[in-house]
Amino acid sequence: MLRIGVIGCGYWGPNLIRNFSQLNGSNVVMCSDLSSKRLEHMKSLYAQIDTSEDFHDILRRDDVDAVVVATPPQTHRDIALAALQAGKHVFVEKPLALSVEEVSDLVAAAKRSGLTLMVGHTFVYTAAVNKIKGLIDAGELGDIFYISSTRVNLGIFQEHINVVWDLAPHDVSILNYILGGMPESVATQAHGYIRDDVEDVAFLTLRYGRGVMAHVQVSWLNPNKIRRTIVVGSKKMLVYDDVSPLEKIRIYDKGVSVMPHYDTFGEFHLSYRFGDIYIPRLDDSEPLKVACQHFLDCIAGKEGGRSAGGAGLDVVRVLEAADASIRDNGRPIEIVPVGSGTTED
Amino acid sequence: MLRIGVIGCGYWGPNLIRNFSQLNGSNVVMCSDLSSKRLEHMKSLYAQIDTSEDFHDILRRDDVDAVVVATPPQTHRDIALAALQAGKHVFVEKPLALSVEEVSDLVAAAKRSGLTLMVGHTFVYTAAVNKIKGLIDAGELGDIFYISSTRVNLGIFQEHINVVWDLAPHDVSILNYILGGMPESVATQAHGYIRDDVEDVAFLTLRYGRGVMAHVQVSWLNPNKIRRTIVVGSKKMLVYDDVSPLEKIRIYDKGVSVMPHYDTFGEFHLSYRFGDIYIPRLDDSEPLKVACQHFLDCIAGKEGGRSAGGAGLDVVRVLEAADASIRDNGRPIEIVPVGSGTTED
Amino acid sequence: MLRIGVIGCGYWGPNLIRNFSQLNGSNVVMCSDLSSKRLEHMKSLYAQIDTSEDFHDILRRDDVDAVVVATPPQTHRDIALAALQAGKHVFVEKPLALSVEEVSDLVAAAKRSGLTLMVGHTFVYTAAVNKIKGLIDAGELGDIFYISSTRVNLGIFQEHINVVWDLAPHDVSILNYILGGMPESVATQAHGYIRDDVEDVAFLTLRYGRGVMAHVQVSWLNPNKIRRTIVVGSKKMLVYDDVSPLEKIRIYDKGVSVMPHYDTFGEFHLSYRFGDIYIPRLDDSEPLKVACQHFLDCIAGKEGGRSAGGAGLDVVRVLEAADASIRDNGRPIEIVPVGSGTTED
Amino acid sequence: MLRIGVIGCGYWGPNLIRNFSQLNGSNVVMCSDLSSKRLEHMKSLYAQIDTSEDFHDILRRDDVDAVVVATPPQTHRDIALAALQAGKHVFVEKPLALSVEEVSDLVAAAKRSGLTLMVGHTFVYTAAVNKIKGLIDAGELGDIFYISSTRVNLGIFQEHINVVWDLAPHDVSILNYILGGMPESVATQAHGYIRDDVEDVAFLTLRYGRGVMAHVQVSWLNPNKIRRTIVVGSKKMLVYDDVSPLEKIRIYDKGVSVMPHYDTFGEFHLSYRFGDIYIPRLDDSEPLKVACQHFLDCIAGKEGGRSAGGAGLDVVRVLEAADASIRDNGRPIEIVPVGSGTTED
Repeated sequence: MLRIGVIGCGYWGPNLIRNFSQLNGSNVVMCSDLSSKRLEHMKSLYAQIDTSEDFHDILRRDDVDAVVVATPPQTHRDIALAALQAGKHVFVEKPLALSVEEVSDLVAAAKRSGLTLMVGHTFVYTAAVNKIKGLIDAGELGDIFYISSTRVNLGIFQEHINVVWDLAPHDVSILNYILGGMPESVATQAHGYIRDDVEDVAFLTLRYGRGVMAHVQVSWLNPNKIRRTIVVGSKKMLVYDDVSPLEKIRIYDKGVSVMPHYDTFGEFHLSYRFGDIYIPRLDDSEPLKVACQHFLDCIAGKEGGRSAGGAGLDVVRVLEAADASIRDNGRPIEIVPVGSGTTED
Repeated sequence: MLRIGVIGCGYWGPNLIRNFSQLNGSNVVMCSDLSSKRLEHMKSLYAQIDTSEDFHDILRRDDVDAVVVATPPQTHRDIALAALQAGKHVFVEKPLALSVEEVSDLVAAAKRSGLTLMVGHTFVYTAAVNKIKGLIDAGELGDIFYISSTRVNLGIFQEHINVVWDLAPHDVSILNYILGGMPESVATQAHGYIRDDVEDVAFLTLRYGRGVMAHVQVSWLNPNKIRRTIVVGSKKMLVYDDVSPLEKIRIYDKGVSVMPHYDTFGEFHLSYRFGDIYIPRLDDSEPLKVACQHFLDCIAGKEGGRSAGGAGLDVVRVLEAADASIRDNGRPIEIVPVGSGTTED
Repeated sequence: MLRIGVIGCGYWGPNLIRNFSQLNGSNVVMCSDLSSKRLEHMKSLYAQIDTSEDFHDILRRDDVDAVVVATPPQTHRDIALAALQAGKHVFVEKPLALSVEEVSDLVAAAKRSGLTLMVGHTFVYTAAVNKIKGLIDAGELGDIFYISSTRVNLGIFQEHINVVWDLAPHDVSILNYILGGMPESVATQAHGYIRDDVEDVAFLTLRYGRGVMAHVQVSWLNPNKIRRTIVVGSKKMLVYDDVSPLEKIRIYDKGVSVMPHYDTFGEFHLSYRFGDIYIPRLDDSEPLKVACQHFLDCIAGKEGGRSAGGAGLDVVRVLEAADASIRDNGRPIEIVPVGSGTTED
Repeated sequence: MLRIGVIGCGYWGPNLIRNFSQLNGSNVVMCSDLSSKRLEHMKSLYAQIDTSEDFHDILRRDDVDAVVVATPPQTHRDIALAALQAGKHVFVEKPLALSVEEVSDLVAAAKRSGLTLMVGHTFVYTAAVNKIKGLIDAGELGDIFYISSTRVNLGIFQEHINVVWDLAPHDVSILNYILGGMPESVATQAHGYIRDDVEDVAFLTLRYGRGVMAHVQVSWLNPNKIRRTIVVGSKKMLVYDDVSPLEKIRIYDKGVSVMPHYDTFGEFHLSYRFGDIYIPRLDDSEPLKVACQHFLDCIAGKEGGRSAGGAGLDVVRVLEAADASIRDNGRPIEIVPVGSGTTED
């Protein structure tokens, strides 16, 4: 039975406490927050959990095996590092931290101490994303041509990070996961309409090599909530609509093929295929629960880490390059390949 | 009664013949096509119209006042120029021609001879686009922040022009029209999946000055047909779905405002507004008919030319810059301001 | 080559002329209408077709083999009977006529003379309805439990027939066709809101025997157009949405089963099944063309008559009973079984 | 501060405990359930609440002012009657009880003792239903013609009551509320497919006088969840889609009018109006919370009882008549007018 301490009881904290409390392999023993009111609320829900306004109280406890960091992003690096140095396994809400340098510190500290460091890229634990990965890996879609993703709604504006750091971690973690690798470059066009210094709308183009292109549109300024990803392959096409409660994935048996041999003097021949549409039923277990179980399995050494520190680093490398591209007027920024964390490390 | 000759009887030709035949102010007297079969078909529909496989036969006729050019884009410049030189008013299917140089030749020739040169940017004649322009001009949406447009479906692939030249003229003509001006720069990411040398997917970012950004996604490789434009203003937001038969425009009374004066030491205060949605009923007259009538009105000197040659030039300047950006790996290409044709000239 | 005369050039007449003109096996030689204006219009479209304001001119011609009756329903019986007596095969727009007695006259006359009498129940020629019939016949949906159909929109109000006679022929012909039989009874609740004496809203419940129930809602007074039929079977369920251009049929792999043996003292055990959804691609040929070809095939003796006079009689028997139920305050009216025409006769 | 006891901790019980705990004017002091497991669960959530497996323990407590009955419907009458006899105000989950006789016992007992008896017709506390009532009362829709309601999904099958008693209380309570009265008759067609003796699909037609018709379709056997009510008025039409999270009500500015004076020898003239669509933003407070507050207000004498015992009686009178109609093959059953409880009593 793993004993967990949770730092930060805002939006995600309570959900993480609930999940780690309900799992068989873990127990939440303490939580902390700067607000005594939030702590009182947690106490009213979970009488047996200790509380403190100082997260160091959690780190000091010998009976805490692992720590969950669900505080604002700008605090992730310091808190997670302190936790690792205190010998705790660490689960951090996305993004893992706010720069490659910060994340690298965390990854290095985890490696040194042999502790598990995991980032909460929740979407890679959804049934929908794993269905897509399964279809791609099995070759059902053919070669992947391009992916176009839209993640927009009205609000909630952040003060300390722009919309790229707020929303794009979802898309980049999904893309790296289903494509099994890192982009080679990213170009980003963005603008801040509500505040000049914080971009609230951005368009990213990621190049994944072998011609695979991914486009990501993120916005806090859109009249309705859209969470849609279109995957276009040489054999089939797929639309993943995360807002739909029951029909998240539609697989279109549609495509275009070039006739393999054609007379260069003659017409250019294409063959269009228009076929059935298939909407697979998906398991509806809570992704956060799957992520929490995955953290326990990683600690137990059963899994290599679908969103281990290395995967978190990969996402932050892309976000940092996206920011650089914004500052350079949208010029594509190369992402130098290093030992990738996307593949299990 | 204006007498019209129509060159090219493929897809658009017959629709233009039908409309110019039905309007009170015009009459179609002759049409030409390279295919005798197409001409026979037109003859079976309109017994009174003369036909020829050689378009020069149309240009030679003194009783032809105006010529419609509905041939493939790569032939537009030569045919339209010959028509102008023969003293005919000219209506050209979009795009007006395939380079700024080609279009400039046409605009200059029209100016020299005092003839009307118009390009068939059909969408600027739709009730929906004019409703949007009216709302923007009346300030109902507030300041325009950004516009995001998607125009994708499966096929129909072109051989001689890429997807930018095929589909983006619609978006660029709409954008220039409703924003009342030209973009200052365009950055385009694109790729050819079916054929290396012809881009079938592209993402354009246009900067219209004063922070106004427009993003356009065009693709021949998408599982379903989408024709959607989202206009985000400081007061209201709007979704224009051209595929919807009866509910093309939805106006969202939604927005975010920054509190005008706020304590820099305190929290950053935003005020969200979530209000009603309003779907105005739109007139459903055929846009092509409106465009044809507009051509007649321009010739009669009644209108300045909503899509006159200058407007066609503006669109081609953007497309040419988009192509340059593609070849330069997506770098933004500036569009040097000249006497704009978007405003009526 | 069958020579066709068309009586009535209102809405359906021109569509029937177009189809019979384009088919290889037939040719339209003459059409009639009370309005000389309509005849002029038809002449402008089809120069080679003779016209007359008197339909008897068609019946008198020896070179006319078959007649299409596309006049208002209250004239169907007299015109079709005259045509049969003149030795012509007859295709009548739905409903075949306005009472069982009228239809019986026609069916008897056709039988006597060995001529083909067919009613234009267009929907039984659609790819969607035939897909449903195929699924039911193949047992893919299991036992059919019930069918619920909605056919409503705003307008177009009729003067001489109520909404049951106007819209329900579609549903009843579909139901009889896919269920392969006649209902045993019909109960109808209806009301006339715009005019007291002409029902504009009606709800029909048809009992097809062995517990199979069909419910049909028809209305001229509904804010949006709905053409939806839900088929619930013991194995699978199906939604047929005729308004959807590309996704007319959705097959739900969903169901409930009672555990075959269960302890009567214990709980009642049900097993729910929630599975995939499947949207088959359907052929998009024009149903009216298929119906016209079917008429030619029936005359040639190749087919038994999917909507032959007997099928038209079956539909009218149901409509007449529905009217009787309306006048009797919604009481179910039995439909006495006679030699059914639904099965091919 | 009103002290509440809750009997039954299945699905609704916990939601009622949560709401009565959070309201300012009430406090939950005890709950009971036959299952000790459910009680343990409630104890883990609300440590301060006493529990018992015997509901009489609640009734015996002097410090309990009011009792909530959230047990299976067949137990409602006995438990609610015992509670009233013990001097407690009573809130009963819908349906109030399973026959007019049972409900009359409760209404009489409440009247005798001057206690509040209320039934949880949750929908009459939703923002959507109250918006509709407001529009009707203000005459915005004109005269109401008819209402068509559909409440279907797959499962959850009940053992002791049929689908009419399970789902139709929602529709009947909404209809009585927005139309401000009782139907004069109800005709019901129904069938049990999964179990012969428990109808799982039913179609009800209710006549509300002055020609107003309401049609209700309820089913436990439908492939997807539909909760849709269409209200057709002489001026405007409205669609209420309870499944839509953000766009529950659409108001169509559409209609048909008869020309007031028209030549009886001439054509019948109708005027169609096709206008805008309007989707009002609705308050999204939890309806159950509003219902609980309403109960407190009724006890405090501030409100007459939007769903007081009389309203519950009215609903049960309709359901009982619907059952009688089912047993009589769908014949319309009159509902004798008595002092209606729909108007506040």
